[in-house]
Amino acid sequence: MAVYTQLGAEQLAKLIAHFDVGELVMAKGIAEGVSNSNWLIETTGQDGSGARFILTMYEFRIELEDLPYFLSLLDHLAARGCPVPRTIHDRDGALYRMIGEKAVALIEYLPGVSVSEPTAQQARAVGAELARMHLAAADFAGSRANSMDLAEWRRLADACTAQGLTDIDPALADLVERELPLLAAAWPQDLPRCVIHADLFPDNVLMLGGQVTGMIDFYFACNDLTAYDVAVTHAAWCFDGSGRTFLAEQSRALLAGYESVRPLSAAERAALPVLARGAAMRFAMSRAYDWINTPADALVTRKDPMAFARRLEFYADPANAGIFAAA
Amino acid sequence: MAVYTQLGAEQLAKLIAHFDVGELVMAKGIAEGVSNSNWLIETTGQDGSGARFILTMYEFRIELEDLPYFLSLLDHLAARGCPVPRTIHDRDGALYRMIGEKAVALIEYLPGVSVSEPTAQQARAVGAELARMHLAAADFAGSRANSMDLAEWRRLADACTAQGLTDIDPALADLVERELPLLAAAWPQDLPRCVIHADLFPDNVLMLGGQVTGMIDFYFACNDLTAYDVAVTHAAWCFDGSGRTFLAEQSRALLAGYESVRPLSAAERAALPVLARGAAMRFAMSRAYDWINTPADALVTRKDPMAFARRLEFYADPANAGIFAAA
Repeated sequence: MAVYTQLGAEQLAKLIAHFDVGELVMAKGIAEGVSNSNWLIETTGQDGSGARFILTMYEFRIELEDLPYFLSLLDHLAARGCPVPRTIHDRDGALYRMIGEKAVALIEYLPGVSVSEPTAQQARAVGAELARMHLAAADFAGSRANSMDLAEWRRLADACTAQGLTDIDPALADLVERELPLLAAAWPQDLPRCVIHADLFPDNVLMLGGQVTGMIDFYFACNDLTAYDVAVTHAAWCFDGSGRTFLAEQSRALLAGYESVRPLSAAERAALPVLARGAAMRFAMSRAYDWINTPADALVTRKDPMAFARRLEFYADPANAGIFAAA
Repeated sequence: MAVYTQLGAEQLAKLIAHFDVGELVMAKGIAEGVSNSNWLIETTGQDGSGARFILTMYEFRIELEDLPYFLSLLDHLAARGCPVPRTIHDRDGALYRMIGEKAVALIEYLPGVSVSEPTAQQARAVGAELARMHLAAADFAGSRANSMDLAEWRRLADACTAQGLTDIDPALADLVERELPLLAAAWPQDLPRCVIHADLFPDNVLMLGGQVTGMIDFYFACNDLTAYDVAVTHAAWCFDGSGRTFLAEQSRALLAGYESVRPLSAAERAALPVLARGAAMRFAMSRAYDWINTPADALVTRKDPMAFARRLEFYADPANAGIFAAA
């Protein structure tokens, strides 16, 4: 949610000249991305009729060696008709360039807005696009381990310390101690795997009405259990922001939308409750870590870890076991 | 440099429905404005061919009673051919609307980028547009006192305290004590007055090549000495960012551009040195105040007050008296 680096018009024009996109017409730093700076750019375009792009500068967290995976994945998915922005290659064919010590990439602009209160129709559309993405990624050559896996949740919890978690909420430290060993023991190993988005929150989806016009921000994408991506997307779309209210209609619609394109196997369905607990734990732990390590008045808005602790409790409650049962 | 308020797609769509601009297609929070939040908005437009706007939410500093002055000034200048964005009136003709307790206005989008190292050609173009704006504003009915006047510079200096100024730089407190009484005694009273922009920095000018495509951010506009606006613009465009290097070519070009449209009277020209010292003092004091009162890690980037103290010293040096002499 910030633009960390100032880039003047002169620097931007010099950068844009390395791409076959015409002359710079407009550049606005946009308030998107937590670990990168982004600009919405307009140029005269190849044919003079105008073109728009997102320019991303990678500031933190991203390993340069991972960039080709993320950026060529965009190309792979866009070429297969997924609503995913293409990477614009420079005149030498490179996926990204360096400005000083920072990598920058020029990415296709897609229209649409991010919803904050998704309807069931919108959840259904997202489910279907997620399934199409899973199928379209099947022949993607790249491979990347999930850096936000069970071992990382434990590492984040340890870095927060029990006292840090208790300071956020007295229930949080207990929840973590109860759930982490349980998740480690119950985590499925033999389910289908593919390239997953791993962070498909409403912020990362552009929509026009009921239609998905863009899936963006693939910087957590990795090779992992396909059904885990369904679980992450469920945790992201099927609760109100605070995690206090489960949205049953959106939940049914998301799963039905997904299965309209890629039916879940019986084993995947059976694993969804534990995968969803894991998904909730993943965001509870990254948020707890950021909560403790981000000054209250910093550039980035802190997000409440308890919103995901509440989802975890919901998923763990046997009374809610039916939400993932086959329709 | 921030988006202080989150507005979801649903809230934005509801707001946009009050204007005759079609349906919402895109909304990006943009990193512009210090005391307001801004979004670049795209809609389907009145005729379906698309239209873009800037949505501004007034967060701090602005008095609601001043908004009609600022927003109707935009309409006045745009109607007279100045490259100034029009205010989009809502379906009831209102210049702004309220969302909760905050005022929001929808403003025309103008293309262009802000330069950070203006060329002489660009400085000349800005000088000419400033003069056109002064002439075009002559019959504007509104009136607003300059809230950043000499009395306010003194108030800001007192609020900083001599110790606070000394902490910024040992020379700053001395400079203020030397200059403020001198400026108060020498400040001209009988020069022509008009509506002035009062903050026409490169950030507030959009350009394409050598052409001015937009003058924006009129939230310091007021009725004051016409030549003071020339002095402010001179201080903003004719030095490098640090204030250490005077750009003689840009200075000559800015003044020549201005006079190509509105020649300065002999009295205005004679007053420019003291007006420029005042302009430098105005930004040194607002920056010093913000420096002392803004946490180092806050949302807003602190700007160095000394960059304007150096300009003040330059303007006060008799060796530089010639820069404002008639060509």
